Amino acid sequence: MVEAPLFDRVAIIGAGLIGSSIARAARETGAARSLVLYDRSEDVREEASRLGLGEVAGTLEAVCRDADCVILCVPVGAVEETAAAIAPYLKPGAILTDVGSVKESPLNAMKAHCPASVHLIPGHPIAGTEKSGPAAGFATLFQNTWHILTPLPDENEAYRGAVDRLASFWEALGSRVEIMDAARHDRVLAITSHLPHLIAYNIVSTAYDMESVGEGEVVKYSAGGFRDFTRIAASDPTMWRDVFLHNKEAVLETLGRFSEDLAALQRAIRWGDGDTLMQEFARARGIRKAIIEAGQDTAETNFGRNRNGKKD
Amino acid sequence: MVEAPLFDRVAIIGAGLIGSSIARAARETGAARSLVLYDRSEDVREEASRLGLGEVAGTLEAVCRDADCVILCVPVGAVEETAAAIAPYLKPGAILTDVGSVKESPLNAMKAHCPASVHLIPGHPIAGTEKSGPAAGFATLFQNTWHILTPLPDENEAYRGAVDRLASFWEALGSRVEIMDAARHDRVLAITSHLPHLIAYNIVSTAYDMESVGEGEVVKYSAGGFRDFTRIAASDPTMWRDVFLHNKEAVLETLGRFSEDLAALQRAIRWGDGDTLMQEFARARGIRKAIIEAGQDTAETNFGRNRNGKKD
Repeated sequence: MVEAPLFDRVAIIGAGLIGSSIARAARETGAARSLVLYDRSEDVREEASRLGLGEVAGTLEAVCRDADCVILCVPVGAVEETAAAIAPYLKPGAILTDVGSVKESPLNAMKAHCPASVHLIPGHPIAGTEKSGPAAGFATLFQNTWHILTPLPDENEAYRGAVDRLASFWEALGSRVEIMDAARHDRVLAITSHLPHLIAYNIVSTAYDMESVGEGEVVKYSAGGFRDFTRIAASDPTMWRDVFLHNKEAVLETLGRFSEDLAALQRAIRWGDGDTLMQEFARARGIRKAIIEAGQDTAETNFGRNRNGKKD
Repeated sequence: MVEAPLFDRVAIIGAGLIGSSIARAARETGAARSLVLYDRSEDVREEASRLGLGEVAGTLEAVCRDADCVILCVPVGAVEETAAAIAPYLKPGAILTDVGSVKESPLNAMKAHCPASVHLIPGHPIAGTEKSGPAAGFATLFQNTWHILTPLPDENEAYRGAVDRLASFWEALGSRVEIMDAARHDRVLAITSHLPHLIAYNIVSTAYDMESVGEGEVVKYSAGGFRDFTRIAASDPTMWRDVFLHNKEAVLETLGRFSEDLAALQRAIRWGDGDTLMQEFARARGIRKAIIEAGQDTAETNFGRNRNGKKD
């Protein structure tokens, strides 16, 4: 529990995995005095009510009313439209943030609509599972994860105070907060998150289409390595489509390098060049070791975890 | 525990992760009346003794003496040399098997050296972790995993009896046994295991070489998906080099399809074709669902697990 709430009223727009987890975590930790959710889907709003996630508003106007922190938890592709729709209802002095996996293009989209009296501070929790929807969220999702904020280069004291307050809110939810430039965020995440997801989706598709290997066999012998990819590839398709469309340049650049490197391995296999394979494979252990030493591979990842903290 | 030992004396050649796990499992389950290990490295032999894995022989001749089942637990590239070296010491009527991740080329290599009086029955446990060496093994490694046997098309009754006995041995260790043609095994594993490892090694290399993203950042934000790849890419480099060199045709064919499919996704990203991305990503969920329904994604994988059954 925090000593005092960081915000009087937090509004969460989009009650999926991330939005519903923020609601649960904010209530459990006392990080928000009151909390209200909205989702554009009536079914999701009803489910959020049924799950007891908090007060559920029926309109964008109602969810923003009196909120001193509004968190957009919608796919990256819906950020601009949502920001435009809520702009008239934002309270002066409020914070507007998001949780998108891409930062530069949504930042520009939000900036175009955000009133000058509102503090726009984009953010991205490096947390998630492959599940979606309000029932998939859980209060400890953000524990021991990084939360990246990409604030504007604004020297204004009130703005800097707002950034501090938002950082404290995420720390209350269990995250460690890092400040980063939006463009840099997008380059870093292209390799640590976006490309891995693209590759995982792709290998599952390739397996699906192998006429010479039955789907049943792929499933049966998936423990050989494939299974770890299918878990990542079960992530929300809409969210990931938007990530790739909105971080196009960084993803294409990273993907180009990946394909070049893969072509080199392919050539080494074709020509029986064991030394090159050995050298590349041995190098990979170094990064793994660094991850373990940095404590980034704690007991488990959240992939495969449900809201009771249990694995599938 | 099994009712009666399946073999009087099992010889394990190669005391790494798999060899040492077989030794532990065979003792715990009583699947072998006696057991002896050999490793070409004196250091590994000493470690195996110190770990109390069983009797440790100092030579290939000594390890094979009186053994009615000899299990080669060496990298695929060392199978031929080892089979040739032990051939004179194999007891008539004994079983010679292996645990290699590739089956067709090692089968031919072993066949060239195996005496006619010995039952050659290649095998492959779909089990493992990213760790190596005798200390990394554990007795439950094979629990609820598949073990594939690729016997020769031999209608001989004694041979069929030997296949049954070897299958029962692996079942005693906790595996479910499947009989498969060696060439088919290699095609199936190319997609479910070999390609995933190649891709994982490759993405870690690509990340390593990104000048615009520091290694520290890759490590720090690895929870976004990258971390799951580094775990697979921490697997034994020698073992995997040999897999790719010895399953060249199937791996190149599968890799060619993967690259084509990836180029299509790349094109969709470049041209902003969200429908294609959406369609491909949505499809991947189907395979994931099938894996969960088939119970192939039980509580956890063995990746990241050490011999106490604990995660790193």
